[in-house]
Amino acid sequence: MAQKPSIPKGTRDFSPAEMARRNYIFDTIRSVFRLFGYHQIETPAMENLSTLMGKYGEEGDKLLFKILNSGNYLAGVDPALLDEEKFVRLTTQISEKGLRYDLTVPFARFVVQHRNDIQMPFRRFQIQPVWRADRPQKGRYREFYQCDADVIGSDSLVNEVELLQLIDEVFRRLKIRIAIKLNNRKVLAGIAELIGAPDKMIDITVAIDKIDKVGIDKVNEELLDRGLSEQSVKALQPILQIDGSPAERLDKLARLLKDSETGALGVQELRTVIDSTLSLGLDAELDLDVSLARGLNYYTGTIIEVKALDFAIGSITGGGRYDNLTGVFGMPGVSGVGISFGADRIYDVLNGLDLYPADLGTSSQVMFVNFGGAETAAALRAVKALRAQGISCELYPDQAKMKKQMAYANASSIPYVALIGESEAAAGTVTLKDMAKGTQTTLPLADVAASIRG
Amino acid sequence: MAQKPSIPKGTRDFSPAEMARRNYIFDTIRSVFRLFGYHQIETPAMENLSTLMGKYGEEGDKLLFKILNSGNYLAGVDPALLDEEKFVRLTTQISEKGLRYDLTVPFARFVVQHRNDIQMPFRRFQIQPVWRADRPQKGRYREFYQCDADVIGSDSLVNEVELLQLIDEVFRRLKIRIAIKLNNRKVLAGIAELIGAPDKMIDITVAIDKIDKVGIDKVNEELLDRGLSEQSVKALQPILQIDGSPAERLDKLARLLKDSETGALGVQELRTVIDSTLSLGLDAELDLDVSLARGLNYYTGTIIEVKALDFAIGSITGGGRYDNLTGVFGMPGVSGVGISFGADRIYDVLNGLDLYPADLGTSSQVMFVNFGGAETAAALRAVKALRAQGISCELYPDQAKMKKQMAYANASSIPYVALIGESEAAAGTVTLKDMAKGTQTTLPLADVAASIRG
Repeated sequence: MAQKPSIPKGTRDFSPAEMARRNYIFDTIRSVFRLFGYHQIETPAMENLSTLMGKYGEEGDKLLFKILNSGNYLAGVDPALLDEEKFVRLTTQISEKGLRYDLTVPFARFVVQHRNDIQMPFRRFQIQPVWRADRPQKGRYREFYQCDADVIGSDSLVNEVELLQLIDEVFRRLKIRIAIKLNNRKVLAGIAELIGAPDKMIDITVAIDKIDKVGIDKVNEELLDRGLSEQSVKALQPILQIDGSPAERLDKLARLLKDSETGALGVQELRTVIDSTLSLGLDAELDLDVSLARGLNYYTGTIIEVKALDFAIGSITGGGRYDNLTGVFGMPGVSGVGISFGADRIYDVLNGLDLYPADLGTSSQVMFVNFGGAETAAALRAVKALRAQGISCELYPDQAKMKKQMAYANASSIPYVALIGESEAAAGTVTLKDMAKGTQTTLPLADVAASIRG
Repeated sequence: MAQKPSIPKGTRDFSPAEMARRNYIFDTIRSVFRLFGYHQIETPAMENLSTLMGKYGEEGDKLLFKILNSGNYLAGVDPALLDEEKFVRLTTQISEKGLRYDLTVPFARFVVQHRNDIQMPFRRFQIQPVWRADRPQKGRYREFYQCDADVIGSDSLVNEVELLQLIDEVFRRLKIRIAIKLNNRKVLAGIAELIGAPDKMIDITVAIDKIDKVGIDKVNEELLDRGLSEQSVKALQPILQIDGSPAERLDKLARLLKDSETGALGVQELRTVIDSTLSLGLDAELDLDVSLARGLNYYTGTIIEVKALDFAIGSITGGGRYDNLTGVFGMPGVSGVGISFGADRIYDVLNGLDLYPADLGTSSQVMFVNFGGAETAAALRAVKALRAQGISCELYPDQAKMKKQMAYANASSIPYVALIGESEAAAGTVTLKDMAKGTQTTLPLADVAASIRG
């Protein structure tokens, strides 16, 4: 006999109850994106490998899911490549397409391909799954959703201020208390310059990014291991120890970085963004964190990261400004800033803190019992009438025993069960049972919708 | 320089305007599914090939997109298979996963895998893309959405009646006039029996399915070619020429098939479904069409197909009853009935007939002009206040020339432009320009939302 089927590791099925929770997250993010004037696009799951390869580093290339060419993919392939030592070169011969790895590269490709149809500044959002052949582990999947909003074609810091407000509004609606951490890549460049190691910016940021996890001593060790001089490490210490309110940190940082043109510009950008955001008011905590690095090769200005305050998990949203989104596709000079909400981690936070609304609508509002014959016909008419009034309902399809029908309603968490027996059918009434309270009343069909809506 | 990027043939990007139209379709279908008590699930894009292979016929196996195993997929492969003559066997060695081809097989797999968590009768809906390596052509894509609703674990004909009402409601809301064609696989079996060719049911249905396209003479030719006797073809003619209202056709069919037990049962099922549906009332035309076959190997009872009345295109929705959804995965006896809406064809019909609502909300409702400095700060506050009232708005991010900002608003079809200059900022007012009418008024910020809502 067939064995019990399964799904590929790192992928998931979502049940109706899980879908209700996920839709709550997606709907919230989507409606805030729209409120802020972002417009939805979608791109295909498959992209040409020429679009994807080389965009995520050597490791990323390996993590792309590649699709075997259709038909006889070996026809015309150089037989010398049919050797396990040469599989990397063979891959380019037998696979031309891959699954998207994120939403940013497809967006860049979209912008270049449709450049004549796009109105700049272009505010786009995109909510779609991405695929990565990562080793699956707790909280890391091979298929997961990204929810991205970007505005391109404008280098105004107003965009950063808007995105911070957007983040604040999403998490305010989701009732998740957050801290938004900010940094600026120019500040990181300024720091590297200041401590006499301008060519070591990446080493510095990779090391100091871990300060929360491993502590300052380990960070200093790593910096020395990465070839920084004792003097540079010493010069870095006052920066790592900056404390106080965001305004105080900015002042201290400004003094420390005053001799680096780039660094000073970074501080000024941070100040503009922070001052403007705080003066508009927000629910989130806003922190300046000079140890924040995130995908450094990519970002060129503001860097944003969001942490949940009441639940231990990695960053739940992140983003930043980039100066050259589309250069790799031959369209230079397109600057932008964007953020990405991690729907799966947000799902874990909401589950962990039990923050879902009470009624997510995972069931019909009413189930009609099926008594058969003329009563079933009457129930079908009643169901039709209620649906016309916007009440989601169902008729139990089979004329099963009452006990079985009620057990189904119970197990499905349907709040109301409606009965139309002979007397109700004759009188044009419905007997409505409130499953939570255990009460029941008989009322005219015309009054049922109002009664359910309370 | 990099060449202009492109996407794989048969796939599509969707612009904001296209997304607004697609969302209108998906939202309509989704809300009717919910109104009728169907619950959403989602399954992964990738399934194990062992789940997919052999479920869609030999041709279907070829049309599956197969994913190359990660890492060195050639390691351990028998070198004898590295030969273009043996690519089919090699495929099973280097690819374990494929992209889903439809939503039905993944649903069957889902039901078996989660059988202990599912409450029967189980009404599920699923709206996700599927992928087929078909030759792309007008209206046929390699990535397209299916919108499926099925109820399993019940063989009551009430389910058919409910699904017909669901179809009627979806197209009523979309304002597409339709004919729903019905048939029953048992009727087809009865016909084959009646004309003395019970083993030729598939040949008969394949041939008569084309009667609308090629006419009765060609159908008869094909039947003879397919090995039916002259006598059988002659006996078939009265059935092919049945006409009249659905009730009249049923009566004629009942008389013709009275000696076939299976055929008579099929007629009786059709009569129950049609009578019950007509007595509840529907907007759609309801036709009985004995030439309707659809995926015959699969369906065992009712067969449903929907055609648009005012636009020439293939079937835009279809479905039917099956007796053994999950048998192939080792769980026999699960009967069900389902329908699938073809979102892409519905999109073509709505475009062709221009049936979209006037305002699909593809832009912000208001754009604030950016004057810089204190006026920008005032505009940011106004934007925040309007969003809190549910008005989607944006601030032009750059302090560009007025002409440029207005051109953007125009090109983006933003209905209102708001100006906060020095005097408005001082007075707490906004000058609101109605882009369609060309009029403008200055009013307190507190009144703007009401003014926009009209």
